[in-house]
Amino acid sequence: MGPGPCNPYPEATEALGRPMLGHLDPEFIALLDETIDALRTVFGTSNQLTLPISGTGSAGMEAAFVNVVGPGDTVVVGVNGVFGGRMCEVARRCGADVVVVEAEWGHPIDPTALLEAHPDPTVIAVVHAETSTGVRTDLAEIGAGKGEALFLVDCVTSIGGLDLRVDEWGVDLAYAGTQKCLGVAPGLAPLTVSDRARDRFVDRCQSWYLDLSLIAEYTGAGDGGGRTYHHTAPISMITSLHAGLDAVLAEGLDASIARHAACGALVQEGMQDLGFSLFAADGYRLPQLTTVRIPDRVTDEADVRRSLLEEYGIEIGGGLGPVAGKVWRIGCMGHTARPRNVTTLLGALATVLAR
Amino acid sequence: MGPGPCNPYPEATEALGRPMLGHLDPEFIALLDETIDALRTVFGTSNQLTLPISGTGSAGMEAAFVNVVGPGDTVVVGVNGVFGGRMCEVARRCGADVVVVEAEWGHPIDPTALLEAHPDPTVIAVVHAETSTGVRTDLAEIGAGKGEALFLVDCVTSIGGLDLRVDEWGVDLAYAGTQKCLGVAPGLAPLTVSDRARDRFVDRCQSWYLDLSLIAEYTGAGDGGGRTYHHTAPISMITSLHAGLDAVLAEGLDASIARHAACGALVQEGMQDLGFSLFAADGYRLPQLTTVRIPDRVTDEADVRRSLLEEYGIEIGGGLGPVAGKVWRIGCMGHTARPRNVTTLLGALATVLAR
Repeated sequence: MGPGPCNPYPEATEALGRPMLGHLDPEFIALLDETIDALRTVFGTSNQLTLPISGTGSAGMEAAFVNVVGPGDTVVVGVNGVFGGRMCEVARRCGADVVVVEAEWGHPIDPTALLEAHPDPTVIAVVHAETSTGVRTDLAEIGAGKGEALFLVDCVTSIGGLDLRVDEWGVDLAYAGTQKCLGVAPGLAPLTVSDRARDRFVDRCQSWYLDLSLIAEYTGAGDGGGRTYHHTAPISMITSLHAGLDAVLAEGLDASIARHAACGALVQEGMQDLGFSLFAADGYRLPQLTTVRIPDRVTDEADVRRSLLEEYGIEIGGGLGPVAGKVWRIGCMGHTARPRNVTTLLGALATVLAR
Repeated sequence: MGPGPCNPYPEATEALGRPMLGHLDPEFIALLDETIDALRTVFGTSNQLTLPISGTGSAGMEAAFVNVVGPGDTVVVGVNGVFGGRMCEVARRCGADVVVVEAEWGHPIDPTALLEAHPDPTVIAVVHAETSTGVRTDLAEIGAGKGEALFLVDCVTSIGGLDLRVDEWGVDLAYAGTQKCLGVAPGLAPLTVSDRARDRFVDRCQSWYLDLSLIAEYTGAGDGGGRTYHHTAPISMITSLHAGLDAVLAEGLDASIARHAACGALVQEGMQDLGFSLFAADGYRLPQLTTVRIPDRVTDEADVRRSLLEEYGIEIGGGLGPVAGKVWRIGCMGHTARPRNVTTLLGALATVLAR
């Protein structure tokens, strides 16, 4: 019940152990195609260029930036936590001039401030669900006001657990992770790219591994529509993602989102009943990731987390960066997002804190 | 029985499905440490900075280059197949001036030609086992003569299946894959870096995801020796790599290499008995990957491969690049490297060819 990885869906775990297929085996190609179709559904997009990047969520972030940002480009980034900060770092390593629009940790990015930060940016980037603070930033207004810019969004923690409409909200590049609300092990980064963004790919991507023009030729989204070897696809992980997405869509995407909402409400009520105050601003709290302030009466917060892990097998997350030691992060994502898990956590925490 | 992925060891497959651990869970950190120790053994190194990169073998290639090569650096690359060519492309995207030393496909790189190609290169790079041609290039002489250059080697197909001595042979950066002779699913790239190479890391790596100075702070090889979050480690894949390396080392690394040698000899004898000639130069043939010329009597080589796959569940690889349609690539790696599999392949191929 940390900020991820969650416990994967049993179907996703079972699929990891299936017999190995070759990356050009027609059976695997069909499985990849179905995986990509399901990713379109959870992203809320019809983008042809949709695929799982062969790395974790941060590789997805890097793939999103390196294909559209080059030296001298202006990138406006909303920063209200660790992952917005990471976006700045990745954009700078592409040679970008980064314009930072900050919001206080625990608060969302102000769309107007973001849109007015620069008259003509190449990219406007924001994190949909900040895993370091438990805050949602709404996307629709930013997408509607983006103008000529490309709109790039981190959906690592939102996908499968929050309403997400890439096409409707005008998102041009979105990346995600498998180990949060999709209920799959960490190791892949779902990514989707609009045709508008594809038309503006840099001439030569500084990364060969993450060059989407090349990878598209393998996933069937290239000009030829063929299946040209780029790198050996991580077969077992993609097979598991396929099964995890099957589980999400069999439950129903709306039902999955509603389950995350219900479990998050239980966590947030329960933690307040235990005397904790919530860190994230009211109205912008993520159900799948609750941040609470650690009260003064808890003299050794790491010891409490250790007790939960060692005695109950429950992991919760500490704070990152400036909120290290000040907040806990409690995840309820994927297969972990079950009321019984919330009950167990709250009971265990009450017991440990009463000592 | 293609050029990879192989069939993973049963222990590696079983481990994929173990309960999820957090990436900062002490139990996972201990497992990561053991994995890294085992990687040192299979690489033949005591390098502190040894780790599995969170991506496939090509991500390992990119990680090796982007940390030591910057704009204007000279990189000498031996090219005798697809993967040498890929190294040139990756180095150029780091801004390097690349000096190509070619050898005919099917032949090894001439060490003298490589060493004399430039008086003062930043990096000399070569592929130990060329997966596109089935050829071994010997490393010791190159390492001994490298002078001030860093020696960078692709060990994707050699690790676990060929004698490999990173320290003894003066290799500064080596990367590998999990899906060949280590008998694990594709998805990770074992990597090792000498202290000499670490001292020459570029000031700011163009990749955040592959920045080894940052990743080292998570794997325990950083200055602080701590465990700072960088990206969410691919837990299931690392757990599987741990189990696969356990299987290799329980058999014995020398025994694993000898088994690959014995199976390769069976493939090469058997294919010659069926009337095929071997593509790779005598004395430099990889046992784990045999390339054969497709004779004229085979009028539709893709149809033969399709029959093997559909009727016998056996995959063999076609040729890449200039040898597409001209050679087949038969892998015998990891758990697949068993005499019974060779027998089945040869029997199946004889049956299909007799039609």
